Amino acid sequence: MSLLITGSIALDSVKTPLEEHHDMLGGSASYAAVAASFFTSVNLVGIVGTDFPRPYLDLFQKHGINLAGLQIADGKTFRWSGEYEWDLNQRRTLSVCLNVFETFQPNLPEHYRAAPYVFLANISPQLQLHVLAQVKQPKFIVADTMDLWINIAKEPLLELLKKIDCLILNESEARELMKETSLIKAGKALLKLGPKFVCIKKGEHGCLLFGHDLFFSAPAYPLEDIHDPTGAGDCFAGAFAGYLAKADNINHDTLRKAVIYGSVIASYNVEAFSLGRLQTLTQQDIESRYRIFKQLSQFEV
Amino acid sequence: MSLLITGSIALDSVKTPLEEHHDMLGGSASYAAVAASFFTSVNLVGIVGTDFPRPYLDLFQKHGINLAGLQIADGKTFRWSGEYEWDLNQRRTLSVCLNVFETFQPNLPEHYRAAPYVFLANISPQLQLHVLAQVKQPKFIVADTMDLWINIAKEPLLELLKKIDCLILNESEARELMKETSLIKAGKALLKLGPKFVCIKKGEHGCLLFGHDLFFSAPAYPLEDIHDPTGAGDCFAGAFAGYLAKADNINHDTLRKAVIYGSVIASYNVEAFSLGRLQTLTQQDIESRYRIFKQLSQFEV
Repeated sequence: MSLLITGSIALDSVKTPLEEHHDMLGGSASYAAVAASFFTSVNLVGIVGTDFPRPYLDLFQKHGINLAGLQIADGKTFRWSGEYEWDLNQRRTLSVCLNVFETFQPNLPEHYRAAPYVFLANISPQLQLHVLAQVKQPKFIVADTMDLWINIAKEPLLELLKKIDCLILNESEARELMKETSLIKAGKALLKLGPKFVCIKKGEHGCLLFGHDLFFSAPAYPLEDIHDPTGAGDCFAGAFAGYLAKADNINHDTLRKAVIYGSVIASYNVEAFSLGRLQTLTQQDIESRYRIFKQLSQFEV
Repeated sequence: MSLLITGSIALDSVKTPLEEHHDMLGGSASYAAVAASFFTSVNLVGIVGTDFPRPYLDLFQKHGINLAGLQIADGKTFRWSGEYEWDLNQRRTLSVCLNVFETFQPNLPEHYRAAPYVFLANISPQLQLHVLAQVKQPKFIVADTMDLWINIAKEPLLELLKKIDCLILNESEARELMKETSLIKAGKALLKLGPKFVCIKKGEHGCLLFGHDLFFSAPAYPLEDIHDPTGAGDCFAGAFAGYLAKADNINHDTLRKAVIYGSVIASYNVEAFSLGRLQTLTQQDIESRYRIFKQLSQFEV
């Protein structure tokens, strides 16, 4: 089953204490689309400028990602730059230039509108609502968000929550949105705002999946060397939605598996800058790490 | 198999935003001994003053805890008081009065010295070494520690690490002791200092168990209402060591189960102040929550 993905497509400049790279492929939709492509066919909705490097378009195509919904507009591509401390959990945004993204109001290609599965990657909730309104009868809608929208666009975010099936957000964002220090209380409170499922990402501590009669705690993969954490959350969410589109059957078992597949792809992605590691990733790599996740959380009854 | 436990026995005064209680039974050895008593017979080593309330001695005896190694000395019992914020992860120590504990140098009763299993609950590493030196041929030694000893008694702590089988400590303590922000790197580095196993407690995020060819990630129980977090770590460690003494067979399966049993007892203990909840806890309660831990971390291969 195909998966519609919208979000940002960016040129990222990232500095860690050990390395620095400029104008790499980034953006929430880029990470999510490539991550999802390991599980299902992806219809991408986004915008780039005329400066967007041809090799990055080739990269999307190599992953079988449908680019009919990718607009190439006069102007410059969205740019983001950030810096990580030695503690890679600490990130500082250095600059954000929206460029062509500023006035982006996509009009979906006709064949995109029948999308059964939708992933609204991290962009403004207004834009997420604008895209969602054009999809005719979606079976399952997953959305990601971030602290920025909780702070400056809370109303449209709350409107969005009523229309989606699953919300994915970070630990700190869940606490902030619900004004609740307990993650368990925050997760349950979020379910009351609309979504049937809520997935709280906790970085090195794994993630939690909440449903009305579901609670699942997934471990994190024990990574020793993280090269670039950028996009880990987007890869998680893209692979999560991609696996659900592939399974085409939403139940507690497939949701739990989707969380683990999301964690697997995210754990590979942070092993290199940008989408570097996913370029050489094989289905065998994915299944092998899935089995490791099983081993590391296994205990006897 | 019997378990020797030493550590502090205290009268605690605890304030949370909702409640305040004075001179309750507390201390690392008290929590650990009662937690372990659900799995094995416990020989307690500790000291209290003549002001120590009789009902607390009765409580130990009700749990079948052997008090031959409990010294009742002239003077006052060790006292601790602390306050929790709304975010119960944030604790402030208000006062510590060592009292009779200040000069405590226990001499183990003869029949304690053959202890096959030993748990050195949180006290100074010098005192932990002093007790350990009197045990003839222990099969398995577990030790807990805290940030205070990392700061003021690092040398004896490092000496202790060479003599024990399993170290239990908090996330922040592991990072501090190893000067390492990655918990995975900190855990592996700790193994090089002596212990065969290291268990890092992460509170609401569960815990990690490291061994030379073992890595286990355990979830936390999804508690919504925590009344008093005091002693959760001591209960975890006491039940962990208690289950291992009961199993009397150290392998990866029993270690993983011990982590889950530790988490079960700790999750019950925080439901009430002091050791209140453990007074009514049944074996059925323990097995029932153990099965919930299984469900909440389960996914299909």
